[in-house]
Amino acid sequence: MARKIILDLDTGIDDALALAYALGSPELELIGVTGTYGNVLVETGVRNSLAILELFGRADIPVFAGPDHARTRDSFEVLEISAFIHGANGIGGAVLPEPAAKVQEKSAVDFLVESVERYGDDLVIVPTGPSTTIAAAIEASESFAKRAHIVMMGGALTVPGNVSPWAEANVNQDPEATDLLFRRANDVTMIGLDVTLQTLLTYAETKKWRELGTRGGDFLAEATDYYIKAYDTTAPHLGGCGLHDPLAVGVAVDPSLVQLIDINMKTDTEGPTRGRTIGDETRLNDPVKTAHVAVAVDTDRFLEQFLSRLTTLAQATEPSESHGS
Amino acid sequence: MARKIILDLDTGIDDALALAYALGSPELELIGVTGTYGNVLVETGVRNSLAILELFGRADIPVFAGPDHARTRDSFEVLEISAFIHGANGIGGAVLPEPAAKVQEKSAVDFLVESVERYGDDLVIVPTGPSTTIAAAIEASESFAKRAHIVMMGGALTVPGNVSPWAEANVNQDPEATDLLFRRANDVTMIGLDVTLQTLLTYAETKKWRELGTRGGDFLAEATDYYIKAYDTTAPHLGGCGLHDPLAVGVAVDPSLVQLIDINMKTDTEGPTRGRTIGDETRLNDPVKTAHVAVAVDTDRFLEQFLSRLTTLAQATEPSESHGS
Repeated sequence: MARKIILDLDTGIDDALALAYALGSPELELIGVTGTYGNVLVETGVRNSLAILELFGRADIPVFAGPDHARTRDSFEVLEISAFIHGANGIGGAVLPEPAAKVQEKSAVDFLVESVERYGDDLVIVPTGPSTTIAAAIEASESFAKRAHIVMMGGALTVPGNVSPWAEANVNQDPEATDLLFRRANDVTMIGLDVTLQTLLTYAETKKWRELGTRGGDFLAEATDYYIKAYDTTAPHLGGCGLHDPLAVGVAVDPSLVQLIDINMKTDTEGPTRGRTIGDETRLNDPVKTAHVAVAVDTDRFLEQFLSRLTTLAQATEPSESHGS
Repeated sequence: MARKIILDLDTGIDDALALAYALGSPELELIGVTGTYGNVLVETGVRNSLAILELFGRADIPVFAGPDHARTRDSFEVLEISAFIHGANGIGGAVLPEPAAKVQEKSAVDFLVESVERYGDDLVIVPTGPSTTIAAAIEASESFAKRAHIVMMGGALTVPGNVSPWAEANVNQDPEATDLLFRRANDVTMIGLDVTLQTLLTYAETKKWRELGTRGGDFLAEATDYYIKAYDTTAPHLGGCGLHDPLAVGVAVDPSLVQLIDINMKTDTEGPTRGRTIGDETRLNDPVKTAHVAVAVDTDRFLEQFLSRLTTLAQATEPSESHGS
């Protein structure tokens, strides 16, 4: 039986790739998407999620909206660097038709809490943006905190951050939320920059998607090319774009893709290193470890699975206009 | 055949314990001690090393003096916190007779370089203070950089530092030296706060040493009790003192005591996080990893070995005055 999954996305380009990856993975049954802010505004991310689900023929999957800003702030504006990396519309300027489906009335937090109540160990939650929505679910339900299995993209333990020498972008948006997550959730797997900067995609791969001559292939290629181009500027030493969010989905499919260390984590919320994710020295000798941080990844195996699944998924979409009859 | 070992010590209390541990380990043949600054001045550390070697009947082992201050400074003064933790004489106020042996004429750097030339893979070097001397050896000899096997106590990768939220005390003394070590040495095993704060000693153990009624037992108990008392003030959440330097010796005896992750490391030398040890993002995807960082430790097995070896060693020393005939 497929494991149920909820993606909590700020749908951005690598979020879009993660969403497609989940749709293309037979081990996973995507039961819903919750939308958060980060790479984009909540409303933009929700719109992108709905449009991508429709593109891949899965308009039946519900999308829920979460809080639209961080716990300690009154509002949220997209950072210049986020717009540079993901484009103003979040998907690198790629144009998708206005989706027919609408966002659900139910809140993302209610959907998350109810889903954990209903499915327990059969459900995995994969947040790929700020921890705001998950933290709200933890505060709303002790049972959620105890029973939810969370595989998050975010943080950096053994490498520097990407918005400062110590902070990773998702955690940096709402350090208090990630700190609450680390301190109160019972099972958090952290897929951070430690490993996601080891899983790189280049133009060689996106070329293959473009050559499929399908709407799905065109979309994946166009969005990802934009993303790779941004990486050429922001992190030229890498030689490609980091598959941050897709790797978290990959680990939800198969945890053996990464080497995990068991550790109790915290997030610095004060002082010069605000936003840093690091081991909690006060729980260092607690034998119960609530977090599991990926420190190495089987890059080849992940990339092969990711590429073949997205290619299969994109192949099944309609021919693109230029290739259409 | 025993593996040859050189200890590079700023002899301090846990350095003294590390020295005793090496003497009590049949897998190791201590061929020399090099003295550095840090917990104490070089001359104090050298004096302590000579006195401890004599106490345990090994005045035959030569002691060499290294550079007496950091690369980027003109001089060195013992920090107040170091004097608090190790006592003004570095060994918690314990009194040892003036040693008969003197420090060698040869420099620590020459001794290190020549020893690697002579013994190659049969030698392990264990620095437990600032990286200044080892960095000087690396600069003095390309062969040393390539061939030396180094198991260092220092740094903090997955936990905060102990002199600031990001810097560990040894590395903090000379960040440039540790950075050079990480960038140029081919084989560095880092035993940092990640694991050394998991290996704790309490009054229950030192009581057993005191009850031996020997000069060795008295010394170990008196020095260590001072150290535990300091920890009660500086890190009360731990409930004991961290066996920093001894754990590096333990790993030189038996690497299977720790879980290591392979990673290319750097040390921040600029900006607010000066002194932080962290993965080098520019070498993240280099398949050759020159550092191996301990992230977990078999505490019980280490403590059992450490305690039984120090007890056996201390038992063989002369009766203490109060127990003497």
